[in-house]
Amino acid sequence: MKSFDEYRAAVENALGTVFRTLGPVPDALRNAMQYSLSAGGKRLRPVLLLAACEMAGGTEETALPFACAVEMIHTYSLIHDDLPAMDNDDLRRGKPTSHKVFGEGMAVLAGDGLLNAAVELMSGSVLRSFDIRHVKAMEIIMRHAGVTGMIAGQAMDLQAEGGPPDEQLLRYIHHHKTADLLMAPVEAGLLLGGADDAAIAAGSAFAFHLGLAFQMTDDLLDVIGDAHLLGKETGKDAEQHKLTWVSVRGVGETRRDAEKETELALQALEKLPGDHMLLQSITRQMTGRKQ
Amino acid sequence: MKSFDEYRAAVENALGTVFRTLGPVPDALRNAMQYSLSAGGKRLRPVLLLAACEMAGGTEETALPFACAVEMIHTYSLIHDDLPAMDNDDLRRGKPTSHKVFGEGMAVLAGDGLLNAAVELMSGSVLRSFDIRHVKAMEIIMRHAGVTGMIAGQAMDLQAEGGPPDEQLLRYIHHHKTADLLMAPVEAGLLLGGADDAAIAAGSAFAFHLGLAFQMTDDLLDVIGDAHLLGKETGKDAEQHKLTWVSVRGVGETRRDAEKETELALQALEKLPGDHMLLQSITRQMTGRKQ
Repeated sequence: MKSFDEYRAAVENALGTVFRTLGPVPDALRNAMQYSLSAGGKRLRPVLLLAACEMAGGTEETALPFACAVEMIHTYSLIHDDLPAMDNDDLRRGKPTSHKVFGEGMAVLAGDGLLNAAVELMSGSVLRSFDIRHVKAMEIIMRHAGVTGMIAGQAMDLQAEGGPPDEQLLRYIHHHKTADLLMAPVEAGLLLGGADDAAIAAGSAFAFHLGLAFQMTDDLLDVIGDAHLLGKETGKDAEQHKLTWVSVRGVGETRRDAEKETELALQALEKLPGDHMLLQSITRQMTGRKQ
Repeated sequence: MKSFDEYRAAVENALGTVFRTLGPVPDALRNAMQYSLSAGGKRLRPVLLLAACEMAGGTEETALPFACAVEMIHTYSLIHDDLPAMDNDDLRRGKPTSHKVFGEGMAVLAGDGLLNAAVELMSGSVLRSFDIRHVKAMEIIMRHAGVTGMIAGQAMDLQAEGGPPDEQLLRYIHHHKTADLLMAPVEAGLLLGGADDAAIAAGSAFAFHLGLAFQMTDDLLDVIGDAHLLGKETGKDAEQHKLTWVSVRGVGETRRDAEKETELALQALEKLPGDHMLLQSITRQMTGRKQ
């Protein structure tokens, strides 16, 4: 079992070869795609995929195209989410957002391009291996990223803006906007590594609860304001009219809810095959737990 | 061999079932996706895919998920292309564009959702059949739709705005923005039907030349102004500063170029298997040829 940094290095390395496999992309488009893809993300999602695959007994080589695809999908969603018509963010991880650097039109296309290229990577892998597990991994990733997953969460988030606090709605948004893109790499990684259905279901539950716990912790930190302690990615301040877990449940209940979700994540993790150390450490890191 | 209208009816029917296979999509998102998907397109691309598949000896049932996917990709590209940051169009086929009805944020998400859902349809088909040709068909469609295909054409079109007339650049834009999404369904359809590499190459050449001829004819009609004769889809007037084939080559040469490309398309068509009648008729329709 590798460390987070070792997996991350493997991801960086693989992401660096993506454009060689895609063919001749126009400079302006490639620059915009690469700017966001190399903008200093922690690579949490692809690391989860590689770790899950290895925990189930699979190889890194098998998992890498899918790991890159998940990171590209995450990156496209950030580019589109930052657009003026969506969250209207000027900065992301301390750097100007895509539309600030390349213009809105190119930012839309860079996002579209990253989603399309993610699929090209995965279908290339299916074509080379012709392994049914590769098809299933792609299907899992696209479902969690799609209109019943991440995009559904974004749509409801957009709809919810300025509306009344609604716990059920917020849970839907966090499930789909945040947790779905953690469930995708854990499920796909376990499946690629050869895990059985029960282990994949446990991995799915682990990532679901981790996603909720992370989002609750994140909402909490926006209010209590020591975001730096967790190495929070965006320097964005808490927005006034944004629906957050704290605005619905209050600080005290949010703290307890986050604890409960973290506990559920760690319980589900126990049912996974292989060495749990790295995923335990990621869980603690993402939820601010000391032990 | 069916008629255009018969194939089109099969496409409409299959598109009507797409949301049943996707699962629970939030109303606001589904409405936005469905608005554009049912906005009165001619279904040229999916009809080409069904016809090509049948010409090569395949069945409609095999081809339909891929035909729907190509139409969904075409539709997403129109939604994003109409955005204020891109072409800034208020009307498409005489109806208000997506962002005019649902707002820019939801229009971005509806486009993302259609692209993602197109892939879900295709990977679902691969999963059910586990037929290598289905994987290849998906790979072909995603490559033509992607960052070396359609999205590349859109990026260069965005870059070219306001620039000097440049024939090579314009050919690149027409190849990728227009022809690629005709090559995709013809190649994928032939492959799904069981055609050999030579037939697929001929189909690719047919669709490439058809795409250029169509775009030249379209540019010509924007100038000479009898767009109604060809049933042009958009009611949009010729834009002043837009790079068009006529602005680069003049009316007379454009007419001759379009003739030449049409001829090359019809010559390539001769090398395809099966009955050529429907594709000949489509070619004449799209290029305004009398015979």
